Amino acid sequence: MNNAFSTIGLIGKPHHGGANQTLCALYDFLGERGLKAVVEERVADQLPRPNLVAMDLMSLGAHVDLVIVVGGDGFMLGAARVLARFGCAVIGVNRGNLGFLTDLDPENFAPALEAVLAGQYRVEQRFLLEARVMRHGEVKSSNTAMNEAVLHPNKIAHMIEFEVFIDDAFVYHQRSDGLIIATPTGSTAYSLSGGGPIINPALNAMVLTPMFPHTLSSRPLVVSADSTVRLRIAPSNDEGLEISCDGHVSLPVMPGDEVVLSKHSQPLKLLHPSHYDYYEVLRRKLGWGSRLF
Amino acid sequence: MNNAFSTIGLIGKPHHGGANQTLCALYDFLGERGLKAVVEERVADQLPRPNLVAMDLMSLGAHVDLVIVVGGDGFMLGAARVLARFGCAVIGVNRGNLGFLTDLDPENFAPALEAVLAGQYRVEQRFLLEARVMRHGEVKSSNTAMNEAVLHPNKIAHMIEFEVFIDDAFVYHQRSDGLIIATPTGSTAYSLSGGGPIINPALNAMVLTPMFPHTLSSRPLVVSADSTVRLRIAPSNDEGLEISCDGHVSLPVMPGDEVVLSKHSQPLKLLHPSHYDYYEVLRRKLGWGSRLF
Amino acid sequence: MNNAFSTIGLIGKPHHGGANQTLCALYDFLGERGLKAVVEERVADQLPRPNLVAMDLMSLGAHVDLVIVVGGDGFMLGAARVLARFGCAVIGVNRGNLGFLTDLDPENFAPALEAVLAGQYRVEQRFLLEARVMRHGEVKSSNTAMNEAVLHPNKIAHMIEFEVFIDDAFVYHQRSDGLIIATPTGSTAYSLSGGGPIINPALNAMVLTPMFPHTLSSRPLVVSADSTVRLRIAPSNDEGLEISCDGHVSLPVMPGDEVVLSKHSQPLKLLHPSHYDYYEVLRRKLGWGSRLF
Amino acid sequence: MNNAFSTIGLIGKPHHGGANQTLCALYDFLGERGLKAVVEERVADQLPRPNLVAMDLMSLGAHVDLVIVVGGDGFMLGAARVLARFGCAVIGVNRGNLGFLTDLDPENFAPALEAVLAGQYRVEQRFLLEARVMRHGEVKSSNTAMNEAVLHPNKIAHMIEFEVFIDDAFVYHQRSDGLIIATPTGSTAYSLSGGGPIINPALNAMVLTPMFPHTLSSRPLVVSADSTVRLRIAPSNDEGLEISCDGHVSLPVMPGDEVVLSKHSQPLKLLHPSHYDYYEVLRRKLGWGSRLF
Repeated sequence: MNNAFSTIGLIGKPHHGGANQTLCALYDFLGERGLKAVVEERVADQLPRPNLVAMDLMSLGAHVDLVIVVGGDGFMLGAARVLARFGCAVIGVNRGNLGFLTDLDPENFAPALEAVLAGQYRVEQRFLLEARVMRHGEVKSSNTAMNEAVLHPNKIAHMIEFEVFIDDAFVYHQRSDGLIIATPTGSTAYSLSGGGPIINPALNAMVLTPMFPHTLSSRPLVVSADSTVRLRIAPSNDEGLEISCDGHVSLPVMPGDEVVLSKHSQPLKLLHPSHYDYYEVLRRKLGWGSRLF
Repeated sequence: MNNAFSTIGLIGKPHHGGANQTLCALYDFLGERGLKAVVEERVADQLPRPNLVAMDLMSLGAHVDLVIVVGGDGFMLGAARVLARFGCAVIGVNRGNLGFLTDLDPENFAPALEAVLAGQYRVEQRFLLEARVMRHGEVKSSNTAMNEAVLHPNKIAHMIEFEVFIDDAFVYHQRSDGLIIATPTGSTAYSLSGGGPIINPALNAMVLTPMFPHTLSSRPLVVSADSTVRLRIAPSNDEGLEISCDGHVSLPVMPGDEVVLSKHSQPLKLLHPSHYDYYEVLRRKLGWGSRLF
Repeated sequence: MNNAFSTIGLIGKPHHGGANQTLCALYDFLGERGLKAVVEERVADQLPRPNLVAMDLMSLGAHVDLVIVVGGDGFMLGAARVLARFGCAVIGVNRGNLGFLTDLDPENFAPALEAVLAGQYRVEQRFLLEARVMRHGEVKSSNTAMNEAVLHPNKIAHMIEFEVFIDDAFVYHQRSDGLIIATPTGSTAYSLSGGGPIINPALNAMVLTPMFPHTLSSRPLVVSADSTVRLRIAPSNDEGLEISCDGHVSLPVMPGDEVVLSKHSQPLKLLHPSHYDYYEVLRRKLGWGSRLF
Repeated sequence: MNNAFSTIGLIGKPHHGGANQTLCALYDFLGERGLKAVVEERVADQLPRPNLVAMDLMSLGAHVDLVIVVGGDGFMLGAARVLARFGCAVIGVNRGNLGFLTDLDPENFAPALEAVLAGQYRVEQRFLLEARVMRHGEVKSSNTAMNEAVLHPNKIAHMIEFEVFIDDAFVYHQRSDGLIIATPTGSTAYSLSGGGPIINPALNAMVLTPMFPHTLSSRPLVVSADSTVRLRIAPSNDEGLEISCDGHVSLPVMPGDEVVLSKHSQPLKLLHPSHYDYYEVLRRKLGWGSRLF
């Protein structure tokens, strides 16, 4: 057997029984095939296997060719934001429910993973957004988002006011609860709940979806992912704004700041089994089989 | 001249130059017609008129027949929540922009107000919602809302989980950013931004508008205003939930609590000039004159 | 046994094997209980039972206390439009899929129907709309709708232009593909696909849902079912407009005509088993159990 | 003066007084600058100028470098569908209202046009869709669309049933009133009324917007404009379906047919003055200046 990957990382949601079980099964599966497994340190001590090689996530990302992520889409998002920068390939095993990013079945991963390890897989480059908070011309903080960056007041039903520029062209002045800037990957998550369109992951685009806009003619706007989106936060806002990345990390934003969003230089290299079908996942996740009348 | 009202209250947004100017003009207007004016104490000392009769808002509400409210719709909401219980009539003078609740023009209120004082007016009963937070079978806190009550996690993009019952019938289990329960008065405010329908103020109904629901088939639901809506907050939620009334007052809500929403016993008695036309206000506020193509 | 109904009509979708089978089973079920069944003539000759009493739909409606309708919601709509005027009670047996109006299970109707016949049922008054096309002050044609009346150009993607008045107040001028005026019963059908809210059937309201409106701030509008809605068709329209009732019957509308919509004087008396739960039907039909992420 | 264009075509909405007046002014403007004008034959005889050179639209497209189109966006669409294939540049003069495609002001075109003729302009490549109706493996008819192609039953409120494939992957089975497939140019037209997103014209994408879908979780889907969209029309549909191109041309579609949509090989070369600002046009057309509350 010709192995496409020599060293493989295993990570999973810590303190989660189901994830631990799947990680064990994966560890044994890899060992039986003579592949070196490196386990992320937060889960390593929960796996009853001797002589595990454990590393923190950053070291693991730098060390391996492929990372197998066990968890839901939410857990994958957190891992992906870290791992993208190392250029390693990533594949997801879900925790029982099909995910958009985690398509291997925990009960039956062997045949699909066998094929992937033998080089039979599809690779998708999923880009991330980089969000930078600028104050007086300097970057105060920054982070990346796989699904979406959300500008919001950290309070529901609390209007904020900002201007949007795309590639230095003024787009609109908006009063709303906030703004979602989503990647195609994120177009089936929070942005979709807010009325945004579904964007095929292969399209080099992002969508700006307004949240409870005061102007009723506001609509989601799809632009090139190579565009730079700048949000100028009106000085009149209250303090306490934030820009959230994938709902995991929040950067504080002050009235008068500028938030700059652009494509991150390093995409996530997401692997799928060869038979992966984006639209099938979409149909199942969105219940498109069911009919109203 | 036959006066429909003998004692008239004047209230306005405090520390607001424009409001003060209009309050002065109203005070003089009433004086010239021999009508007794009572001024709310927070604005009384800003009006350069001697021998003003000043009262706090509660006393004023109990004392007068009619209250003239100077401010935007937001200010009116706060006043209305207090004044409704006293049964006094209320009329609004906007601060320059037509409001849904404040339809008298500050520059030109005299002819319309003259007619109102002579008994030529339309009166609308606008009901309020009462929101009660129940814990272990006891009312922990309560308040009223003229526009809407909003259950939310006090954090944007943060899912909460709850069950909705209407008149003791289970309606749905929802995972979302929150839920808006709006009166017809509030149907043109926050609920509208969230995709809710416009409800004619004469209709005895309320609307439940989901906020960023995870289930894509969730839709606004219109029910009788005589219904009792109960929200059972799942014990699995994080702490820190709130129920907001008109975006002014927030009641803390704990996982496991129940929030009960029902029509408040005392409606606001809102006056309009006889020529008032709800749909004209709607057209102007929503820009229905403009066309796309 | 104390029978709540003495003579019972049976109607069903003609030339439909499944419906015929269920009609036979119902016929036998009634006979065993000594109840007189009258069968609608279009299905009577397809039922292999001797000495059937057959009548046309109008005669049947005039003759019986209760009509059992076998078919989908669409078939029920057609029957209801005719039967409402006779004041007879109606109950629906679906053809295998739960309907909003047809809640008895064809495979297992006996226990529920037994109880209904013994007087254990819930009765709902579902109002119908009456649509009248006026030309030069005269009614040119009229019909009734249980779900909705739709003004449209009888061509997709073809703009029409009209004015809406409610109780003689001008509401808006609209350019769109058409307008849906739906009852609460119809609020879960075509209007819902067009973005209209769900309206509880007990609410005395109707909703005006614009179809592909050119003004982006157009929104569904909910008003009292006691209101009169008038649509003034602009003389500038092309010929060939129509007003459709439940998608079954179409009345021709000319440029310059006025279409008047109001509540029909006779509601449908719709029966349900005592355990009927509107929200349970809603959840099942709309797939509210399923979740996105 | 250095002319960027030597021969210029003039076309306009026939039998339209305002268009004729502007065409005359343009004709004189070009003559004064020593530029050869060719006038489309349907308007040539309405222009009181001697010795006009008139041609039919096809000959004109083949003959000139630049075509000035006088009319609304709708007229431009019809012209663009013909002219794109000739590779000539096109610029639009609107008839009094700013259009998305017609941005020169009829009352004040001279300074902007002067600059354009001197080579100071921006050029946009706006792609067109090609729609082909396939039957038994053969192309039965085809046409092009600048804004959108719409599959519909040629009857409002009449459900059709079809399957969508993108690049040979099955996407969904849909029951709806129809499907809009729009270009970025068309994303601000019919698709927008149906809930579709706005797509920046520079993005190489198209959007599939469902019309009154029966499945409530249906959403607009944005895919690469290099994709091939195939619509398989279910054999169960009634006859009389159509695919409309820009609302101008309709191709008949039969149950069992396949409709193939792909990017047309020749884009429209649309010119704008150098100061053209897409987002400014968007703000003005969509009324983004106005605010709700």
